[in-house]
Amino acid sequence: MKTLTLSEAANRTRSSDVRELLKDAQLPGMISLAGGLPDPALFDVEGLEAATREVFASEAQTALQYGQTDGQLALRQAVAGLMAERGAPVSPDQVLISSGSQQALDLVSRSILNPGDVVAVERPSYLAALQIFHLIGADTVSIPVDGDGAVVDALLSLPTDKPKPKMLYLVSNFANPSGATLSLARRKQLVQWAVDNQVFVLEDDPYGALRYRGTAVAPMIALAKDVPGALEWVGYLSSFSKIVAPGLRIGWAVLPAGLLDACVRIKQALDLHTSTFSQSVAAKYIASGRLPAHQQTVCEVYGKRADALAAALTDAFGDKLKFNRPDGGMFLWGRFEDGTNARQLLKIARDKGVIYVPGDVFYPDTPDASAIRFSFVTVDKAKLAEGAQRLLAAHKAL
Amino acid sequence: MKTLTLSEAANRTRSSDVRELLKDAQLPGMISLAGGLPDPALFDVEGLEAATREVFASEAQTALQYGQTDGQLALRQAVAGLMAERGAPVSPDQVLISSGSQQALDLVSRSILNPGDVVAVERPSYLAALQIFHLIGADTVSIPVDGDGAVVDALLSLPTDKPKPKMLYLVSNFANPSGATLSLARRKQLVQWAVDNQVFVLEDDPYGALRYRGTAVAPMIALAKDVPGALEWVGYLSSFSKIVAPGLRIGWAVLPAGLLDACVRIKQALDLHTSTFSQSVAAKYIASGRLPAHQQTVCEVYGKRADALAAALTDAFGDKLKFNRPDGGMFLWGRFEDGTNARQLLKIARDKGVIYVPGDVFYPDTPDASAIRFSFVTVDKAKLAEGAQRLLAAHKAL
Repeated sequence: MKTLTLSEAANRTRSSDVRELLKDAQLPGMISLAGGLPDPALFDVEGLEAATREVFASEAQTALQYGQTDGQLALRQAVAGLMAERGAPVSPDQVLISSGSQQALDLVSRSILNPGDVVAVERPSYLAALQIFHLIGADTVSIPVDGDGAVVDALLSLPTDKPKPKMLYLVSNFANPSGATLSLARRKQLVQWAVDNQVFVLEDDPYGALRYRGTAVAPMIALAKDVPGALEWVGYLSSFSKIVAPGLRIGWAVLPAGLLDACVRIKQALDLHTSTFSQSVAAKYIASGRLPAHQQTVCEVYGKRADALAAALTDAFGDKLKFNRPDGGMFLWGRFEDGTNARQLLKIARDKGVIYVPGDVFYPDTPDASAIRFSFVTVDKAKLAEGAQRLLAAHKAL
Repeated sequence: MKTLTLSEAANRTRSSDVRELLKDAQLPGMISLAGGLPDPALFDVEGLEAATREVFASEAQTALQYGQTDGQLALRQAVAGLMAERGAPVSPDQVLISSGSQQALDLVSRSILNPGDVVAVERPSYLAALQIFHLIGADTVSIPVDGDGAVVDALLSLPTDKPKPKMLYLVSNFANPSGATLSLARRKQLVQWAVDNQVFVLEDDPYGALRYRGTAVAPMIALAKDVPGALEWVGYLSSFSKIVAPGLRIGWAVLPAGLLDACVRIKQALDLHTSTFSQSVAAKYIASGRLPAHQQTVCEVYGKRADALAAALTDAFGDKLKFNRPDGGMFLWGRFEDGTNARQLLKIARDKGVIYVPGDVFYPDTPDASAIRFSFVTVDKAKLAEGAQRLLAAHKAL
C-alpha cells in the first residue's frame, strides 16, 4: 500500500533535541538544568486574574471576537510604551503583535528569504531560529560569539563559497544559549554594516528586561536613528513569554513599514490574527502597572539563582569549567577546558540525577563538543548546589 | 537609496479583498451583509468567564506556562468527545490543536505540498484557503459546486495541462461561500477516489455544528473506516471559532499519524504551540457542559435570520435572484439570473447603505460575475428586510 508522500519541507524538519531531552526532566528526583522555561511559581497569577476579570467586565465581546491581523490597538500602544522604556520610542503603527516572538521570526524570515538564501547567525545560536531557517529552505553562515556578543568583525571574512547573506539574526541580550550581551560598540558597528551591505539585521530580545545588574544597552532600532538610511535595515523582536507568561503566546515585532505590511499579509493567511483574548489580557495587565514590580521580583530571584549556580560550579570544577557570570536572562553558558565531551558526560549525569543541554546542539556548523548550557531559573539554591555535585560525580566517573 | 527586497512569497501575497471591504461595515448606518463574523451578542460570556475562573482556581500555572506542541491533553480529549458526537469517534492522539483551523490548514498544506504542486478545490472556494495555497506556491484546479456540494464526478475530467492534484480541499457543511453541504453519496465517492488516486482529501468543517434543520452527514474520516486503505488519505479540520468564540483562536485537525507528526514538527518551528491559556479556557468550557445549549441558541437565532433574509430577498427580487435556503451555517449564496454584475452593483449598494461580498472573489478561476454572498448572522430581522430593499433600490439604479 502506498502512503502519502510528505513535502520536502516536512521531510527536512526534525523535532528539537532539546524538547526530547526535556522529557527526562520529569523523572523523579531529577535536577533539571536543561529547561528554558520561566519559573511558573513566579507568575503574577493574581495580577493576570485581575486583568482577565477586567477584560470580561469591560470588553468581553471584543476580546472573544475576530480581530485585526496586526494586533489590537490597546496592546500595540502598551508595547510602544515598553519600547520607550527600553530606549526605543516607536509608534503603535510600527508594532506587529504575533503568536509569540517565534512566529514574528517566522513572518520576518518568510517575508525576506527565498529558499537558498543565506542568513548570518551567531555561533552558538538560538535553536528554534535555526529550525525556522531550515524549514524555509534557507542556508546559514555563522560568526563567533565572545563576552561582548557576536563578533561583528567576522562579517568581513564570511565564507566565499556561499551567497552574501540577505539577513542577519541574533539574540542581543543575555543570549540563548551564550548568555552574552552585544556591546554598544558592536551594535553601532552592526547597524553601519547593515546599511553599507544592505542586509536586514533582526535583533531578537526576549531576555533584555531580565537584567539583574549593570546598565541596559540600547536596541539597534534606536541606534539606527543616528545612521542615515539605517532604519530600513533593522528590526526588533520581543515577547511577553519571559516577563509575563509564555502561555499567553504574545510576542511582537517592530519593523520598517514595507516589511511590516508583508508580515501582516502573510500572517493573515497563516492564522488570521493572534488570540484577541490573550491580547486583551496582556494589554489590561500592562495597563494595571504591575509589570515593573513583577519584573523586579523575577530579576531578584533569577539573579540569586544565577549566582548560586555560578558559585556551586566554581566549587565543584574550579578552572576545569570556564563560564561567564550572567548579568541577566535565564542561561549560564560554559565550556570544559579539560576536553570533556558534554554529550558523553550527559549520559552519566542523567544516571546521577542531573541534566543540562550539551552545547553542541546550538551550533549551526562546527560544534564545540565541550560547550554546555545550564538554566537555573526554576531550581532553588540547595538543588543548584546538589546538581553541581552530581555533575562533578558524573565527571569523575567519565 | 536601495530598499529591502522582499521574498517571492511576500510579493505574491495580497491582502484579502473581503477584509478591505469590511472596513465599510463600520460606516454609520451601513447594513453589512458582507461579514463572516459570528454574532458577538450571542457569545456565552457568562460560561466563558466561569471557565476562566476555574482555570485560575485549578491550573493557573500550567495555563500560563509553555505547553506541548500538539496541544493540551484535556482539550484533545474534549475534542475527541465532540468528534464522537459528530459521528467520528477518534483518539485524542489523532487530534492536533492549532491556532484556529486556518493554521491547521496551513500546517497540513505545508506538510504535503511542494511549490508547484496542485490542489483541487471547489469553485467557489473558501478565500483564505486559496491564500494559503498561493503563499506556498501551489497551483489549483477546481471542480464546480451544486446543491449537493462539490461535483465529485468532475474530478474525472480535470484539465490535463496541469499535474495530478496531490491534495483536495473542501468545506463540507454549509460551505463558505456556497452554503452547500456535500451529500453522503458524494462523500463516499470522494473517499473511494482518494484511495484510488492516492490524493489526500482534507475536509474543513467549521460550520457543521450550526445546523438549524435536517440531519447531519457523517465526516469523511468516519466513512473512510469502511473503505480499505482510506484512513491514510483523509483528514478533518474544525474550530471553536463559530461555536464558542473566534477570539480564543482554537482549531483542530484529525489526521493520520505520519501527517500529524509532520504538522507537529512544523508547528514547533512556527509558534511552539497554541496559547495554553486559551486552550485551558476552551477545555474547561467544554467540560462545563454548556456547549450543546449554547449551540442550540445560536442555531435558533441564525436559522430565523436566514429565513428572514431569504424571505426579504424573494420579496425584493423574485426570480431575478436565485439562491438556496440555508439549512445551517452563516451564508446565503445567490446568483442574479438577469445578468447583474454583483461587483458593479456593490458600488451603488454601498451608497444606498448596504454591502455584501461580490461572489467573483471566491473563484480560483473563471469567476461568476453574477454570484453574490450574503451573511445574515449579525443582522436583525428588520435590518435584513431593510437591507434587501436598499439592495433592490441599488439594482434599480444600476
